[in-house]
Amino acid sequence: MVALPSGFRSWVTNVGVKDDSRDFTIVAADAPVAAAGVFTQSRFAGPSVVVSREHLADGHARAMVVISKNANVANGRVGLAHAREVTQGVAASLGCAASDVLIASTGVIGRVYPIDRIRTGIAAIPSPLPDTDATAVAQGIMTTDTVHKIAEATVGSGPARVVGVAKGVGMIEPDMATLITMCFTDAAVDRTTLDAVWRRVIDRTFNCVSVDTDTSTSDTAVVMASGAAGAVDTTDLEQALFEVCESLTKQVARDGEGAEKLVTVLVDRARDGEQAKTVAKAIVNSPLVKTAVHGADPNWGRVAMAVGKCSQYTDIDQERVIIRFGSQEVYPSPVDDSGLDALSTYMRGNEVTIHVSLMTGEAEATVWGCDLTDGYVRINADYTT
Amino acid sequence: MVALPSGFRSWVTNVGVKDDSRDFTIVAADAPVAAAGVFTQSRFAGPSVVVSREHLADGHARAMVVISKNANVANGRVGLAHAREVTQGVAASLGCAASDVLIASTGVIGRVYPIDRIRTGIAAIPSPLPDTDATAVAQGIMTTDTVHKIAEATVGSGPARVVGVAKGVGMIEPDMATLITMCFTDAAVDRTTLDAVWRRVIDRTFNCVSVDTDTSTSDTAVVMASGAAGAVDTTDLEQALFEVCESLTKQVARDGEGAEKLVTVLVDRARDGEQAKTVAKAIVNSPLVKTAVHGADPNWGRVAMAVGKCSQYTDIDQERVIIRFGSQEVYPSPVDDSGLDALSTYMRGNEVTIHVSLMTGEAEATVWGCDLTDGYVRINADYTT
Repeated sequence: MVALPSGFRSWVTNVGVKDDSRDFTIVAADAPVAAAGVFTQSRFAGPSVVVSREHLADGHARAMVVISKNANVANGRVGLAHAREVTQGVAASLGCAASDVLIASTGVIGRVYPIDRIRTGIAAIPSPLPDTDATAVAQGIMTTDTVHKIAEATVGSGPARVVGVAKGVGMIEPDMATLITMCFTDAAVDRTTLDAVWRRVIDRTFNCVSVDTDTSTSDTAVVMASGAAGAVDTTDLEQALFEVCESLTKQVARDGEGAEKLVTVLVDRARDGEQAKTVAKAIVNSPLVKTAVHGADPNWGRVAMAVGKCSQYTDIDQERVIIRFGSQEVYPSPVDDSGLDALSTYMRGNEVTIHVSLMTGEAEATVWGCDLTDGYVRINADYTT
Repeated sequence: MVALPSGFRSWVTNVGVKDDSRDFTIVAADAPVAAAGVFTQSRFAGPSVVVSREHLADGHARAMVVISKNANVANGRVGLAHAREVTQGVAASLGCAASDVLIASTGVIGRVYPIDRIRTGIAAIPSPLPDTDATAVAQGIMTTDTVHKIAEATVGSGPARVVGVAKGVGMIEPDMATLITMCFTDAAVDRTTLDAVWRRVIDRTFNCVSVDTDTSTSDTAVVMASGAAGAVDTTDLEQALFEVCESLTKQVARDGEGAEKLVTVLVDRARDGEQAKTVAKAIVNSPLVKTAVHGADPNWGRVAMAVGKCSQYTDIDQERVIIRFGSQEVYPSPVDDSGLDALSTYMRGNEVTIHVSLMTGEAEATVWGCDLTDGYVRINADYTT
C-alpha cells in the first residue's frame, strides 16, 4: 500500500453507478492548496472537464472527486447540472466552497448519471475523510483497467514526496492529458511554478502515449501540492513529477485495451521536437506496425511505411533514414534470413523498442504505445451491451 | 467477363514473384495515348512510383505493367534499377520507348525482386498482346485481396466506355490514390483535360477511403484514354469516371483486411469541404467506432468522441451537432432502451451509414471505410512469416 503525501486524506466507496465495484473516490487536502490541471481539447469535452477547468482558474483546490463507470458526457444541460451538484455536495460535506472541488468522470458516453444513488453516496461522506491510502484511490478510479496504476518518487533527498495515480485503457491518445491522472505532493510550491512544471511534465509523458488514436472527452490531469513537507528545489520537484508520470504513462500503455506488449518508439536526429514526436506517433499508431509487433512478424518495412506517410516533412530522405528494432539495424543495411529470425525473436519479448534516426537534425522524442490484438477487438466490439 | 475499351490489349501471367498465382500484368494501348496519374506522397515512395511519375510527365503513355506480391520498396539503388529494367524490357517487346511504359508494384516492402524470374517473364511477352479481358487484369493485380475489383460505365449515351480496376486491402488511407487503380477509356480526350478530370475524380473517390490510416508507399492511380471511340462531352466523361471510381472505392472498403461491413460516413452542414472530410475521416478511422460497428454495439457516444477530437475546429459546438445512424437520430435527442435496440438491429446489417451534421456551414463530404475485426489482427500479425 502506498500512502498519500502528508496533508491529504481520502475516501473510496461504491455508490452504485453501474455495479457493486468501487466507483466514487474523494481525495482532499486539509485546506485549499496550490493545484494545476490540463484537460482534453475535445469539442465534446464533458461537464466534469468544464467545471474543473472553471474551478482551477484561481490555481487552488481543496479536493478532487472522481466518479467511474459513467463519463457523464454528451448529456446536455442535465449533465452539466449533475456535475455542479456533485461538487456542491462534496464541498458541503468538507466545509469548503464548491469552487474548490474538482471533478472527473469516465466510462460510457451519453448515459445520464444515476443521480439518486450518487446523492445517497454524497450524504454518506464521512468527516473527516478516514483514509490516506493512495492504492485504494488508484483502484477506485478504474473503469475497464485490468490493473491499477500508481507511482511514487521522493523530491530530491526528501522528505517531500510525489504520489500519482492514473486510469485509462482505451480512447487514449491524450491531447492534453490521459483519461484521468492525479498527482499529489507535500512539497510547498507556488501555483504559478506548479502550473508551469506540470505542463512541461505532461507534455513529455501523458501527451506521448497512444493506445488507439482516440482522444477522450474526459481527459483530466491534476496535481495538488499540500506544502506539508516544506519548500523544495523546483528542478527536484519537476524530476520527481516526471519520474512518477513517466512510470504511470508506461503503465497505461502496457494496460492498453487487449495489449500484450509495451511498444516504445524513439525518434532521434530530427529537425525539431515536433517532427520527432509526429513521426514517432505515426509509427506507434500504425495498425500495421501494432499488429506486426503483436505477431512478432519481422515486417520492418511497415515502419518505413509509417515514416513515409509523414509526407508533410519533405526534408525526410529515405536514403538517409536509419531504422532499428532494439539495437538491430534493419534499414538501410539489408536484413538476411538469419537477421529476420533474430528480429522475430526480439519481437517475441514483451517490450519492443523501435528506434528511427531521421538525420534531419538533432531533436528527439520518445512515445509509448502497445500492440493491437484480437483482444482489443473483442473488448470494444461489445462494450456497452 | 468485362472487356477493355477499344484500343487496349492485355496479358496476365505468372512469372513466379512469390508463388504460382498471377503476378505479372500488362495493359497496352495500340499507340501512345493521353494518360494521367496521381501517386502516393509517401517519403518512402517506391521506385515504381518514381519511374511512373517521370514517364507520365509528358501526359502520354503506351502501356502499364503491374507486378504483384512484392512492392519493390526500400530496396535502395537496386530497387530503382530493377524498376527501370522492367519498363525497358516491356518497351522493347512492345516496340516503344521505355518512357512510354508505366509501372506499379505492391506486396511486401524491403525484399528485392526475384529479378531472374521476372526477366524470363519479360522475354516471354507475346506480340501482339493476346487478350482484351479486363477481369483477368483485375485478378492479375491482386495481392491479399479476397475479391477482384472492377467497374465499368458508358460515357454519356456511348459508344465510349470507361473500365476501371483496383486492388488493395490494407495499408489504405490513400493520400493521392489507393494502392493501384487503373482506368481505361476509349473516349478521345486531350491530356490536359484528362489530368484535371482525373484529379477531381480521385479526390472524391479514392482519396475518401480508409481501411487502416496507413498510407501505402506504392499508391498509384492511372487513367489512359485510347480515343478509339471518338470525342465525348467532358462532363459525361467525368461522370463516367466518377461512377467507376466510386464503385471501385466501395469495393476496396468492403474488402478491407478482415472487414465484414462497409461503413459510409456522411458529414454535412460543415464550414467547408476540408472540415467535412477531416471530421468524416476521424469517425471512419476511429478504432473505437470501427469495433463498435463490428460488434453492432449501439455505443453512439464514440461518434461524439471522434467528432470532439477534431479540436482544431473551434466552431464545432456540441450543443448544435446532430448525429444519426442511418435515419435514426441518436444525438442530441436522448436514446431510450428501445432506441438502443433499434440502433443495434440497424448495426447488424452489412452496411452502416453514419451521418453527422456539424451546423457550421453548408459543405459536405462522404468517406468510406470498414469495421475492425479480429480477422484484421490475425491477417496482419502474420503477414510475412
